[in-house]
Amino acid sequence: MNGAESLVRTLVGSGVDVCFANPGTSEMHFVAALDEVPEMRAVLGLFEGVVTGAADGYGRMRGSPAATLLHLGPGLANGIANLHNARRARTPVVNIVGDHATSHRALDAPLQSDIESLARPVSRWYRETETAGQLAADGADAVAAAIGPPGGVATLVVPADVSWAVAGDPAPARPATAPASVTGDAVERAAKALRSGEPAALLIGGTATRARGLAAATRSAAATGATLLCETFPAVLERGAGLPPIERLGYFPEMAARQLSGLRHLVLAGAASPVSFFAYEGVPGDLVPDGCQVHGLAGAGDDVPGALEELAEALGASGDEVRLQPGERPSRPAGRLDAVAAGAAIGALLAEGTIVCDEANTSGFFVHGATAGAPRHHWLCLTGGAIGQGLPLATGAAVACPDQKVLCLEADGSAMYTFQSLWTQAREGLDVTTVIFNNRSYAILGIELERTGVRAPHPRASDLFDLARPPLDFVALAEAMGVGASRATTAAEFTVALERALATPGPSLIEAVIDSGL
Amino acid sequence: MNGAESLVRTLVGSGVDVCFANPGTSEMHFVAALDEVPEMRAVLGLFEGVVTGAADGYGRMRGSPAATLLHLGPGLANGIANLHNARRARTPVVNIVGDHATSHRALDAPLQSDIESLARPVSRWYRETETAGQLAADGADAVAAAIGPPGGVATLVVPADVSWAVAGDPAPARPATAPASVTGDAVERAAKALRSGEPAALLIGGTATRARGLAAATRSAAATGATLLCETFPAVLERGAGLPPIERLGYFPEMAARQLSGLRHLVLAGAASPVSFFAYEGVPGDLVPDGCQVHGLAGAGDDVPGALEELAEALGASGDEVRLQPGERPSRPAGRLDAVAAGAAIGALLAEGTIVCDEANTSGFFVHGATAGAPRHHWLCLTGGAIGQGLPLATGAAVACPDQKVLCLEADGSAMYTFQSLWTQAREGLDVTTVIFNNRSYAILGIELERTGVRAPHPRASDLFDLARPPLDFVALAEAMGVGASRATTAAEFTVALERALATPGPSLIEAVIDSGL
Repeated sequence: MNGAESLVRTLVGSGVDVCFANPGTSEMHFVAALDEVPEMRAVLGLFEGVVTGAADGYGRMRGSPAATLLHLGPGLANGIANLHNARRARTPVVNIVGDHATSHRALDAPLQSDIESLARPVSRWYRETETAGQLAADGADAVAAAIGPPGGVATLVVPADVSWAVAGDPAPARPATAPASVTGDAVERAAKALRSGEPAALLIGGTATRARGLAAATRSAAATGATLLCETFPAVLERGAGLPPIERLGYFPEMAARQLSGLRHLVLAGAASPVSFFAYEGVPGDLVPDGCQVHGLAGAGDDVPGALEELAEALGASGDEVRLQPGERPSRPAGRLDAVAAGAAIGALLAEGTIVCDEANTSGFFVHGATAGAPRHHWLCLTGGAIGQGLPLATGAAVACPDQKVLCLEADGSAMYTFQSLWTQAREGLDVTTVIFNNRSYAILGIELERTGVRAPHPRASDLFDLARPPLDFVALAEAMGVGASRATTAAEFTVALERALATPGPSLIEAVIDSGL
Repeated sequence: MNGAESLVRTLVGSGVDVCFANPGTSEMHFVAALDEVPEMRAVLGLFEGVVTGAADGYGRMRGSPAATLLHLGPGLANGIANLHNARRARTPVVNIVGDHATSHRALDAPLQSDIESLARPVSRWYRETETAGQLAADGADAVAAAIGPPGGVATLVVPADVSWAVAGDPAPARPATAPASVTGDAVERAAKALRSGEPAALLIGGTATRARGLAAATRSAAATGATLLCETFPAVLERGAGLPPIERLGYFPEMAARQLSGLRHLVLAGAASPVSFFAYEGVPGDLVPDGCQVHGLAGAGDDVPGALEELAEALGASGDEVRLQPGERPSRPAGRLDAVAAGAAIGALLAEGTIVCDEANTSGFFVHGATAGAPRHHWLCLTGGAIGQGLPLATGAAVACPDQKVLCLEADGSAMYTFQSLWTQAREGLDVTTVIFNNRSYAILGIELERTGVRAPHPRASDLFDLARPPLDFVALAEAMGVGASRATTAAEFTVALERALATPGPSLIEAVIDSGL
């Protein structure tokens, strides 16, 4: 077999049997190997941002990596923004980047570029394979590096001649590495801080935002009266009726500062020390209040849920005081379709097991609250702030979990970054309902402009946030790519459309024309 | 004034008065400055690949840079593929990349990334401004670096606090640097090679593919009997009736090898020594035949047209032997709509002064030949092989040249990379006619797969080139973004639609459903 086939077989043998792909000439032997290795499922994306964002969604839900197949430096570059999000989510992803043949690199052909320089900022592991005989072993190493712990993006660059030359057998899967247990000292320090009687908070993130970590963290918080918070944009948050509810740290620094105000102790479990998303003139970026001590219980590569369970044990937290989220839903909304009404409709209808991919930005502020008491579900966030993530993320999550409905909450501006995702959803028959919150603007930027204190009127600045000239027809865009769609302009229309979409398997889209009251 | 305003005023004072933009929070002070400096025109793109590709098209046609406005590392990353093409075209482009405030960088906020590592592979000049007082000078330096010679991409990273802090006056424009004159020795060596009596060719590229360089090169070739060739993908080729015709080097190595076969001398003027686009097993990547001497007359940073004129003088080439392209057009086609018929229709209808942006890939093979005798026009190619360039390039060219019609020849697969460009065309009322050659496949990859020698059938491999499942409705896509569109399925329909579109100012799109005979 050739190098490419040895790589594909190694990936499959290491548990990587889905490849999101947009290949070119230098990847053609990998593509040809698909006919030799039917265990590998290739999913085509019409743009690399779809490919990498889908790999992020897949890896978050599956906990094990998908591969991507990307075409030299430019193909990788198109996927970097969503790899940035995957890096922040610590999602396991294995990038296979085809390159020119080793003999061709010195010739500076038109597609030649510095792939390493492009890949390093998003990759926790990077390697270029130089011989076909080495490719299988490098592939197995890449999978292991992606899995971690912590998970992350591993990028393997495969020159064309390494793919086409004769290679040996596939490499065996590398043994899994368990996340590190935290020391008794770290647990004891955290326990001491929480039971100090001084204002204290426990901030969780990373692998702690699933049911097991949440349960343990909630026990400790309930037993000590500490505030329990979750990082602003968790990769996957399990929530809903019967699970412990948790408050997310606010996006704007003023909101987060209020949540953290007066604290003397902040215990971190899988979360970084809190900082504001952006810097603003005269506003501190480091959100830890003066006089607050920060205690690291468990970092990203540690067994964070295990550490939280040890903490609860050390505190003797029985869990008796824990208040689980009761089942409760908003009523079906009526009247005009604003962000509150849209949130209520989603809260009223969300079904158990749904995977919510949230890139609704300003329009989505109310959806999170309105779904707090809905049946148990997963909530996936924009972890790295690189927009254009929601539609691809939903695509990959649906590939990972074919038995679960995916609900993608998407802002109009962000949707236009990677709208091609819908074609992949149609092609693969994925069970994704997309809601486009169309407020015909980059609304967040209007808010940010006001925050600069700029004098009004500012017609030329505001024009750069205006998506109404011309208006975008998201129904037509979806249908042009094979996804059935409808438009809702009232709360009732939206509720009916959503109910139908959620009850119907396969991809669909609802354009929610949001009345922002302006 | 603050740093941002000092930068915008400096850019305008340096001749950069168009900014293709997709800003975010960290660029908000630059955006606010637009209301203070009305001389700067901001053009919004819904994705950064649109922004950077438009800057490429603008710079190619104007010969001076536009600015881009990009949002941190991920915003830059989304624009890298088209910056790669701009780098290969040596297009002057000034990237303004907003970054976190200097105080915020150490906090590793979610959008933090290694911008320099991302930018270096596409930038001939890179700088991060550290103080507001330095920003105007850095802006002027960036413009000068972009202009060159040779032209290229200059990337200036502007932290948010550098934008918002108080700054001094704008900086004056830097004096222009003239391209270097080549030595008499280089001219003499080239002249000696061409008049050696041995098989010789003159390969031109870069700034030599405009009328002046073409005229001089043609004189030398005609006087000596040397073969005259142009690089495969020129940035801007001037051609048509009354200009010297020129043959482009072939894309596949076998085609190029035939053109170069038997040569003993190859003189390079603004072109790199020829190499194949991709490497293939058993095919040399360096296309210079054995026994052929390569003579560098003029490099990218030199005055290439001037060098060609000196060469013609040294050869005593009067130009009497030069055969200019006669005016001739194909007949209007009838019958089925295949690539030949589409080419004929375009050749029959192309008007003087049209700017053709060619990313038609396999479907466009016949258009170039069919337009050789059309009235004089510009032909812009995919210089770097990073697809998704055509629609943005046309957008920027139309902004640069509002009095010229732009005709964008676009393949279906490539179109889907940066289809958002149409919205900018509608918003700005740009005079662009887009032809989508819809053969419902990545046809080039089908060819490339066969070249690997893989055994048929290969259904799983071929499925990755299939864009028919589901079919893409380009008419609906265009209309959804405010661009009027029609579909043509016969040669006559296409010809009528094209004639109407070319006669009507403003953006329009024709989906040409190509019958590939399969």
